[in-house]
Amino acid sequence: MESLRIPGPTPCPEEVLQAMARQMINHRGPEYDRIIGQVTDNLKQLFQTEGDVFLLTASGTGGLEAAVVNTLSPGDKVLSVTIGVFGERFGTIARQFGAEVVPLSFEWGTAADADEVRRALKADPQIKAVLVTHNETSTGVTNDLAALSAAVKEFDKLLLVDAISSLGSIDLPVDKWQCDITVTASQKGWMVPPGMAMVSVSQKAWQAYAEAKMPRFYWDFKAAKSYLEKGQNPWTPAVSIVFALQVALEMMLKEGLANIAARHARVSQAAREGAKSLGLPLFADEKHASDTVTAIAATGGLDTKKLIKIVREEHQIVLAGGQQSLDGRIFRIGHLGWVTEDDIAAVMTALKTALPKAGFSGAK
Amino acid sequence: MESLRIPGPTPCPEEVLQAMARQMINHRGPEYDRIIGQVTDNLKQLFQTEGDVFLLTASGTGGLEAAVVNTLSPGDKVLSVTIGVFGERFGTIARQFGAEVVPLSFEWGTAADADEVRRALKADPQIKAVLVTHNETSTGVTNDLAALSAAVKEFDKLLLVDAISSLGSIDLPVDKWQCDITVTASQKGWMVPPGMAMVSVSQKAWQAYAEAKMPRFYWDFKAAKSYLEKGQNPWTPAVSIVFALQVALEMMLKEGLANIAARHARVSQAAREGAKSLGLPLFADEKHASDTVTAIAATGGLDTKKLIKIVREEHQIVLAGGQQSLDGRIFRIGHLGWVTEDDIAAVMTALKTALPKAGFSGAK
Repeated sequence: MESLRIPGPTPCPEEVLQAMARQMINHRGPEYDRIIGQVTDNLKQLFQTEGDVFLLTASGTGGLEAAVVNTLSPGDKVLSVTIGVFGERFGTIARQFGAEVVPLSFEWGTAADADEVRRALKADPQIKAVLVTHNETSTGVTNDLAALSAAVKEFDKLLLVDAISSLGSIDLPVDKWQCDITVTASQKGWMVPPGMAMVSVSQKAWQAYAEAKMPRFYWDFKAAKSYLEKGQNPWTPAVSIVFALQVALEMMLKEGLANIAARHARVSQAAREGAKSLGLPLFADEKHASDTVTAIAATGGLDTKKLIKIVREEHQIVLAGGQQSLDGRIFRIGHLGWVTEDDIAAVMTALKTALPKAGFSGAK
Repeated sequence: MESLRIPGPTPCPEEVLQAMARQMINHRGPEYDRIIGQVTDNLKQLFQTEGDVFLLTASGTGGLEAAVVNTLSPGDKVLSVTIGVFGERFGTIARQFGAEVVPLSFEWGTAADADEVRRALKADPQIKAVLVTHNETSTGVTNDLAALSAAVKEFDKLLLVDAISSLGSIDLPVDKWQCDITVTASQKGWMVPPGMAMVSVSQKAWQAYAEAKMPRFYWDFKAAKSYLEKGQNPWTPAVSIVFALQVALEMMLKEGLANIAARHARVSQAAREGAKSLGLPLFADEKHASDTVTAIAATGGLDTKKLIKIVREEHQIVLAGGQQSLDGRIFRIGHLGWVTEDDIAAVMTALKTALPKAGFSGAK
């Protein structure tokens, strides 16, 4: 069995996998009603929100599309704050559906600057919404969402947050930070297989919904809300993922949000210290380094593709490469969800042996 | 354990449930590449197509939305042939995305008439595409898709088919019947939990794609195609459902399409004969009765909601009620996927005891 150290899908605990194997039930019957109620209540606790939380049968990208089409109209101006691949994807979705996207891009490896967001919003009062990535999986950077939200809310704009690889792992108090839509997905810190996006919807987002004219059917939040009131989803949900979430959320509540966040902080610290002790430079600005994924720059002759192959074949550990312009320039260690310091120690042991075989002759 | 006799989710064989419990793998790694290739090849055999087949992480309704947004532009005129709830849903999706929908509705319980389709297409040469439901789950009617396709193709129109509750259970040779888009979903005849829609795309559909201007990102077929060429999906797929499909499709190919169709024909025959022998009238025109779901009309004082409750609580068998205007007017027995005559015999035994308790005093 390979050990998955990519930023999702993440490994699932045995109890979660057993829940995946449950026989089907009627998704419009009383048992599903009870389960979806419990799962939704537990998600609200973990989202730290009293707003609505919906399950959408989709990957996280589907959740981002849902965030856009439920709150915006074609022609709406949106500020797209991007620090990597997934920030750009969020902006692209808005553009595809006819929004006028004002990009505000920061160098990959760095975090977004709240003052720049302020300047952009001041310069263009027409901007209606701001798209932000909380944790940029492609670069291993976590934005200071509290600071970004403060800037966005000074101007009373709608805040749509991609929290796919942060929520449930890194502290994100959705209501306190006034996130209007927050999107995450089952295969990240939630320790569940992929198949379900989870989204929160604030009162302000519902006001935007009432005006929003982008076409929607499958993603429609009003349908999600009216069916949830009767303990259902509008369309047949991925029932097995809901069973798995039921188990995983109980495990998470038992551990406690603060303990989960502290564990992720410890594990990521171990990943960064381990990399540095091997002479590997971090790609991300360490002040904003992510607690869920660590990106390491290729240096000293290191062939990242070769490294990933050797680590997988000889050590049964799966690492991730770089995406798009970072292909071949970085490799990444995922450490979110079901992960401990021991997992990171195993990665470092493997890297120590594999690095020289992959051309690494020490840092420049 | 309740026995599910609703038209989806359907019960899953033990081997399929065990596949659901598999630990996660890298969805961009070599093992997933092998599996997705094999699953796609097997789906093509079962779709009887040499065209493209894509997996979309979504329910069947997501697949219908994908069919619409990948082939049409706002303002396009489409003929929406409807014989029930799901036909109307397909038309509603097209309308939501800006198509001009020309409805051609037939009485619920009856099948669509190919000559009426011909007349409608002749009367309005502007119509670009025809939306058809192969098997209408809400009424238990299977349309004569071969005849409808012949009518549509006389006028060289695009044919978009909702085959969610037919494909894999009822014969549907996609290429022979010139279906341009065909949509099905994992939780129907495929014996797999919900979470994945499967769609075929013909050459003519690709020509339509090149012109189609409806906004799309998550559902985009070109992204699906380019990623499939490298053994991946564009967005993180429901990996567990792919594992389950891998097992279920092998079981289906072993049984053989002709044997599967014959089994569904036998089982549905047993359901109809059983219902009639209890004095229950069929809701659907028997000439077009579905091989995957049987709808039975409430008559003789029968309270369908009470019946469904008694059958579930006292016999652990889950039947389905009627949807929308059929609520309280019919009940339905699902018999698709993993089903044998014994399952129907068990339903009839339960009905025999439960019917009098639910107010049924014999047919009028």
